[in-house]
Amino acid sequence: MRGTSVLKNINRQFLIAARPDGLLKESDFDYVETSIPEPGDGQVLVQVQMVAVEPALRGTMVEDTNNPANLQIGDVMGALAAGEVVESNNPDVPIGTRVQGLFGFADYVVSHPKAFLFSVIPDGVPMEAALYIFDTSGLTAYLGMAHVGKPQPGENVLVSGAAGAVGSIAVQLAKQAGANVVGIAGSAEKCDWLVNDLGADGAINYKLGDIDAQITALMPGGIDVYFDNVGGEILNAALGQIRLGSRLAMCGRISEYENTGPAYEPSNSANIIKFCRHMERLMLFDHQDKFPAWREAMTTMIDDGSLQYRVDMLDGFENLPRGLIRLYTGENIGKQLISIT
Amino acid sequence: MRGTSVLKNINRQFLIAARPDGLLKESDFDYVETSIPEPGDGQVLVQVQMVAVEPALRGTMVEDTNNPANLQIGDVMGALAAGEVVESNNPDVPIGTRVQGLFGFADYVVSHPKAFLFSVIPDGVPMEAALYIFDTSGLTAYLGMAHVGKPQPGENVLVSGAAGAVGSIAVQLAKQAGANVVGIAGSAEKCDWLVNDLGADGAINYKLGDIDAQITALMPGGIDVYFDNVGGEILNAALGQIRLGSRLAMCGRISEYENTGPAYEPSNSANIIKFCRHMERLMLFDHQDKFPAWREAMTTMIDDGSLQYRVDMLDGFENLPRGLIRLYTGENIGKQLISIT
Repeated sequence: MRGTSVLKNINRQFLIAARPDGLLKESDFDYVETSIPEPGDGQVLVQVQMVAVEPALRGTMVEDTNNPANLQIGDVMGALAAGEVVESNNPDVPIGTRVQGLFGFADYVVSHPKAFLFSVIPDGVPMEAALYIFDTSGLTAYLGMAHVGKPQPGENVLVSGAAGAVGSIAVQLAKQAGANVVGIAGSAEKCDWLVNDLGADGAINYKLGDIDAQITALMPGGIDVYFDNVGGEILNAALGQIRLGSRLAMCGRISEYENTGPAYEPSNSANIIKFCRHMERLMLFDHQDKFPAWREAMTTMIDDGSLQYRVDMLDGFENLPRGLIRLYTGENIGKQLISIT
Repeated sequence: MRGTSVLKNINRQFLIAARPDGLLKESDFDYVETSIPEPGDGQVLVQVQMVAVEPALRGTMVEDTNNPANLQIGDVMGALAAGEVVESNNPDVPIGTRVQGLFGFADYVVSHPKAFLFSVIPDGVPMEAALYIFDTSGLTAYLGMAHVGKPQPGENVLVSGAAGAVGSIAVQLAKQAGANVVGIAGSAEKCDWLVNDLGADGAINYKLGDIDAQITALMPGGIDVYFDNVGGEILNAALGQIRLGSRLAMCGRISEYENTGPAYEPSNSANIIKFCRHMERLMLFDHQDKFPAWREAMTTMIDDGSLQYRVDMLDGFENLPRGLIRLYTGENIGKQLISIT
């Protein structure tokens, strides 16, 4: 039985039209209109209101048998999104429940409470906060800091891509652990945000050059924890200054995703063997059992004001591809969301 | 009150006489005879019967503020050992209980049930098996395979130092996980043991040269899990053939411990960033809460015959330093123990 909230008779979607080659572009997506799907036993129909995009989504569009989220041409583009249940065949998730999950670039989607990353948004938590903190950005930052980096009071923690969705949470988690935290970002405005709003002890604008010297000036003893979102030359600079017992949380390599030339060769990688205690590529799929505890910890931090978030909101369903593409150009500050209602 | 088992009035000990410089030698130890200590409240007096040595012990003798087990000149040389409680001020560990712990190179030692690595040896488990499986060798192999390597059926697992105490357990744990397991060792006899007794699918005698070609021949698709006990050129060869999603359990670098020249520079370490999903230096201190479960899992394997162990036993208290020194020459096969009673 359809709920009364299903007002439109069409379901707008963006499908993957082509596997990306170099820069992601709007023609890599096809806009289609289909009918609204019917939920089966135990399933719910979600009307999506807000979509979250993140750099890792490009990786789901390329052919990669190692990525459990890999998509095919013709699939609805995947993404975290939040909305409201408008039909329900599951008593645990009645009509009207606010939920989030891997709903993708679509107005309506059939889902199930046991789907990967599906969760009910707690009362009192704004949808934007839920998409920022409870989804892959917050969970990945938590995995990288609480389970890999484990910064100790007084240790030196360096975060690249620090003004992005993951990086900005990673900075705050490290700061709460009592570390000396430095963020790397690509503009004076982003660096100001890191220091003045998020509490970083220092910030490095990589566009000013000589990253090595900037790291040395802010962390003369060397790096204990490096949280990497960018790869490439910045990763190499960090590896040049890790000290014995250091930990590396390898979240992403945004500087390399769109490189179609030869892979970047970091000259300092032997330091991983010499000095690094733990290096981990952050894979959320391996840690699903821990999500409820991590979400609870971060909800408490939102409630008491100790975890700030910043949203870069675009409006309009038609802007979904553009919202994703601008992540790779560095235009966004904080979490990129697209409101589609 | 002294138990009747305290028959001798002297307590033989080896103290650290000098921090090792290059090859470890007998003159790095001082033999002394002292009086038998008295256990305080909650403590027990243990008469040591059997001492286990392992390559990592040299690391506790050098100056290293990062090593929580670091010892000073004049300290009793540390080592895992097993024996019997001969005096007890603790009702949980009565006289006659067989125990193991970090008792060191001594006839008698005062200990406490809450001391690091202290455990009661279960009835029916031989002391040799306890020192092999329950102590740092077995626990380290378990950490490296069950928590870092996590081999899946059909994956390629390579273990260096495979005929050593840790390596031989690592090989068997990987085999039980259904992996294709290859061990690297330094003699035909050791390679035969790996394949014919421990169930390895192949073995590489590194003294025959061209390790790269030997790895390619046995694992043409590349390495999924590498468990490293040796470092140096063998580690570099393994890094040259890791594939996407691989895991590295970094246990030890025995080939480098006694090198006083420039550190070995692996040329293939950029592959860690390109391909490796998880690299961890195995640190037992971080995992004490898991020891009981790991010991129980391995006790079950000893009982059902699925975990074999091989002991290389020396006799005599005076042979304690020699038993340690011969580890670095590759003379031992399996776990090196010294019986001192």
